[in-house]
Amino acid sequence: MSRFAVHPKIAETTVVVGDLPLSRVLLANERRYPWLMLLPRTEIDEICDLTEADQIQLIRESAAASQAIRTLFQPDKLNIGALGNMVRQLHYHVVGRWTSDASWPGPVWGKPLDHPYAPADLAHEAMRFRQALAGAGLKDPSV
Amino acid sequence: MSRFAVHPKIAETTVVVGDLPLSRVLLANERRYPWLMLLPRTEIDEICDLTEADQIQLIRESAAASQAIRTLFQPDKLNIGALGNMVRQLHYHVVGRWTSDASWPGPVWGKPLDHPYAPADLAHEAMRFRQALAGAGLKDPSV
Repeated sequence: MSRFAVHPKIAETTVVVGDLPLSRVLLANERRYPWLMLLPRTEIDEICDLTEADQIQLIRESAAASQAIRTLFQPDKLNIGALGNMVRQLHYHVVGRWTSDASWPGPVWGKPLDHPYAPADLAHEAMRFRQALAGAGLKDPSV
Repeated sequence: MSRFAVHPKIAETTVVVGDLPLSRVLLANERRYPWLMLLPRTEIDEICDLTEADQIQLIRESAAASQAIRTLFQPDKLNIGALGNMVRQLHYHVVGRWTSDASWPGPVWGKPLDHPYAPADLAHEAMRFRQALAGAGLKDPSV
């Protein structure tokens, strides 16, 4: 666990929200969609290769992320996905979507994240997610 | 459970592989990618709204689908996703990807499935998946 690090390609387009028991939670710096990424703090890159306990914890944490997005943003739909085609490090996307958003009804993946938040807004959104995920066991990152 | 039916838009581009304890398993009729869809036999359309037991069962079944694709096709990467933007009925995609495939490194979602198998090949692939998923409890559909 002590060797865990977010891949630089992911780090450059996200900010850290905190750590759930299994996953580091990141917020994508893309203001068109409320978009969290869960990165299990392991070196496994396919969900099916996680231990069964970690698979179960990941789906619990993705449900918590889904509920946080729903509470804060009331999207029309949630999109969930683990691709790893660009960056292999396992990252589970949880994204709030609206029927009026820029990519609807297509996926948000495979496109540049080129609508960043203003810095103060990004910090504010990360703080709101920290509060929304506190009940799910979110803590400050330990590594 | 008796009212479960696959949405016509999904049914027209897939064939039935069988039923796992929670989900109907479908094979997409798209020969460029080995592509299974898991449809929990419920009327819930967001994973986070499934019962916790069903969420856990879904991740177990998606792991079984992932292993079946890996065993039969040896892809370079697995892509997992639940979007529901086009058809809201919950369907969890498990897709084998190659770095040489037509959509790499983008997602396969949001594009037409317009490279169907020859009918005999589709039946053959469905049968191979039936065999590969037998150990995960796959049965003939009961509804």
